[in-house]
Amino acid sequence: MQSATIKESTMGSEPRASTAPQPIRDDGVWLEDLEEGTSFSSGPYAIEADEIVEFARRYDPQLFHLDAAAAAPTFFGGLAASGWLTAAVTMRLFAAAVPLATGVIGTEITLKWPSATRPGDVLHVDATVTDITPSTSRPDRATVTFDYRTLNQDGDVRQQTTGRVLVWRRPEPRD
Amino acid sequence: MQSATIKESTMGSEPRASTAPQPIRDDGVWLEDLEEGTSFSSGPYAIEADEIVEFARRYDPQLFHLDAAAAAPTFFGGLAASGWLTAAVTMRLFAAAVPLATGVIGTEITLKWPSATRPGDVLHVDATVTDITPSTSRPDRATVTFDYRTLNQDGDVRQQTTGRVLVWRRPEPRD
Repeated sequence: MQSATIKESTMGSEPRASTAPQPIRDDGVWLEDLEEGTSFSSGPYAIEADEIVEFARRYDPQLFHLDAAAAAPTFFGGLAASGWLTAAVTMRLFAAAVPLATGVIGTEITLKWPSATRPGDVLHVDATVTDITPSTSRPDRATVTFDYRTLNQDGDVRQQTTGRVLVWRRPEPRD
Repeated sequence: MQSATIKESTMGSEPRASTAPQPIRDDGVWLEDLEEGTSFSSGPYAIEADEIVEFARRYDPQLFHLDAAAAAPTFFGGLAASGWLTAAVTMRLFAAAVPLATGVIGTEITLKWPSATRPGDVLHVDATVTDITPSTSRPDRATVTFDYRTLNQDGDVRQQTTGRVLVWRRPEPRD
């Protein structure tokens, strides 16, 4: 998921196609295929301590994400995944579950981490369309809001996300 | 940055310390060291195509994050980093720049990606405290809101973030 402005007029160097950009998958979903309430569920993704530590070393090298013993007396009481690893895994699951033809191009995200992902978690994502706002200036697209939750195998919510995504209308067939 | 609820009463399995958890760094910053307007700037982080592709393969395997040639006709017009890579790098820079004694423990994040991170970007983060709200139920801590921007070497904003972080008061010295 990446990068477009809410105010499309400030999109700067991004291309300003007047029709949908080239699809990145042939069997994908277009705006016409979505409505409020449309929902998707992902497959599973298992997280173990080695991935938690590897991600933390690179992007969030705080003690409670790096070493189980050292993490014990900290806030988390043990090894906890960086929230940004939970977010990255959530993206992987979301993009696989929500097969938008032009890809998942996010503009704005709000997220909460009600609890930390732990070693042994098997995560999945449940997503629902909660709003579709057509662009006033560009009739070929809309901003679609998805609410989605990342849960482990016990139903513990590891991330609660609201994401705004650009979705294009199905292009007219070309002759 | 990871995991605590806004409603502390729903924190579930997290430990409920009545005093600050063990610091994860000795020279760190406590709540008393922060006020509205306190600001921090990070060092630089250079991103090249190989890191963009490596991250995408693992967490966001969409064509425009994977292959420069294939990305050309897509929305981005070329290879673009996953927004979640920008977010992960932002976390690394933020955690190094904002040396909270108990670590950066986020509760809620709002972010926008005004433009995509590109190969060759050298990112840094500028962060400012915009709000400090003491906990009503736990006098040892507050929720501190940071507004921060992730910019490249040309001043292009790659991410705009508002993050709420748990920060503890400096513990009384023990005899």
